[in-house]
Amino acid sequence: MSNVDTPRRRGPYAKSAERRRSIVDAAFEVFASRGYRGGSLQDVADRVGLSQTSLLHYFPSKRDLLVAVLNKRDAEADTGPIGQGHVDFETTLVEQARYNEGIPGLIELYSVLCGEAVTTDYPGRDYFVARFARLREEYSAELIQLREQGRLRPGVDPERAASSIVALWDGIQLQWLLDPNVDMAACLKDFLDSIIVPADATPTAS
Amino acid sequence: MSNVDTPRRRGPYAKSAERRRSIVDAAFEVFASRGYRGGSLQDVADRVGLSQTSLLHYFPSKRDLLVAVLNKRDAEADTGPIGQGHVDFETTLVEQARYNEGIPGLIELYSVLCGEAVTTDYPGRDYFVARFARLREEYSAELIQLREQGRLRPGVDPERAASSIVALWDGIQLQWLLDPNVDMAACLKDFLDSIIVPADATPTAS
Repeated sequence: MSNVDTPRRRGPYAKSAERRRSIVDAAFEVFASRGYRGGSLQDVADRVGLSQTSLLHYFPSKRDLLVAVLNKRDAEADTGPIGQGHVDFETTLVEQARYNEGIPGLIELYSVLCGEAVTTDYPGRDYFVARFARLREEYSAELIQLREQGRLRPGVDPERAASSIVALWDGIQLQWLLDPNVDMAACLKDFLDSIIVPADATPTAS
Repeated sequence: MSNVDTPRRRGPYAKSAERRRSIVDAAFEVFASRGYRGGSLQDVADRVGLSQTSLLHYFPSKRDLLVAVLNKRDAEADTGPIGQGHVDFETTLVEQARYNEGIPGLIELYSVLCGEAVTTDYPGRDYFVARFARLREEYSAELIQLREQGRLRPGVDPERAASSIVALWDGIQLQWLLDPNVDMAACLKDFLDSIIVPADATPTAS
């Protein structure tokens, strides 16, 4: 206990951080399997062996816990191909879709929280509004860049195509969660092929 | 009470049917704004001025209420262009998307219940599994028919394209609910144009 010159000195802080992490992990599981509204603080507390009062010491409200879970989701999703920087827009998206097949828990959490986002007074609504706006902007910028390289097919509107990529992806994940025979990556690739000319093809004018 | 030869004899039944309808309407509103898990039987009972016990006389469980709400959703959605029979597959879908812009409550209900469907032990899960399978089959059959008419673009896989139409539609509805500037019908039309040759165009071989 009086061992002051080893990393153990940082014990209390490290323990608190560790506890926070395990609470967020538990909340992640609870929200993924029951939704935010359906999951209770008691469920989360039970999983980490804390009382609700102790849990509220780490996260003052269920809403704070939701924000922490959404941040964790973003951090984990960023370990996939999209977070790694990329050579080619289409390749990166299709690889990310394949990667997502290995993390069904994360996809489940995303799908249920995203569906709840349309309900009244939902604390995660702003997160999803901002997320969609950011993705549309990013994808749209990528498509405009591809157009400058002569790689966007004629007649494709970058803003609408950006919305559609995000939409197709969200929708196909839902179908895949309910029927694993649905091939998410192949559906996404078909769509991207219909709007983008492959890097090794000669751009055509019609 | 002994009035046997007038329509009033059907009073009690009519009144019960009317009561059931108002309960389903209330449940529709509650589930659309709070989700199935977040909405309570008490919320529904409060809206129709019944006790929970009386409500359970009409619908023995919350699950029965969900099934009734989903059936009501289907019946209402069927009053749109898709329920009217159609001349042209693409026109019908795009018209349905425009029609949906006028029924945000129905789209909200659908989106939140569909997101919840991926959660554990969700009583509406089978409904969505069956709904997706049926839509994929129907759309796929339409696309195969179009192919026989030389109207499917070369290289389009009818099964995957059917999944993608459903996916794009579900996803774009979510974005539209969170940002009404998103043009659902235009995004859907872009996609359909990319896989289907217009009825008045000469089919091409490449």
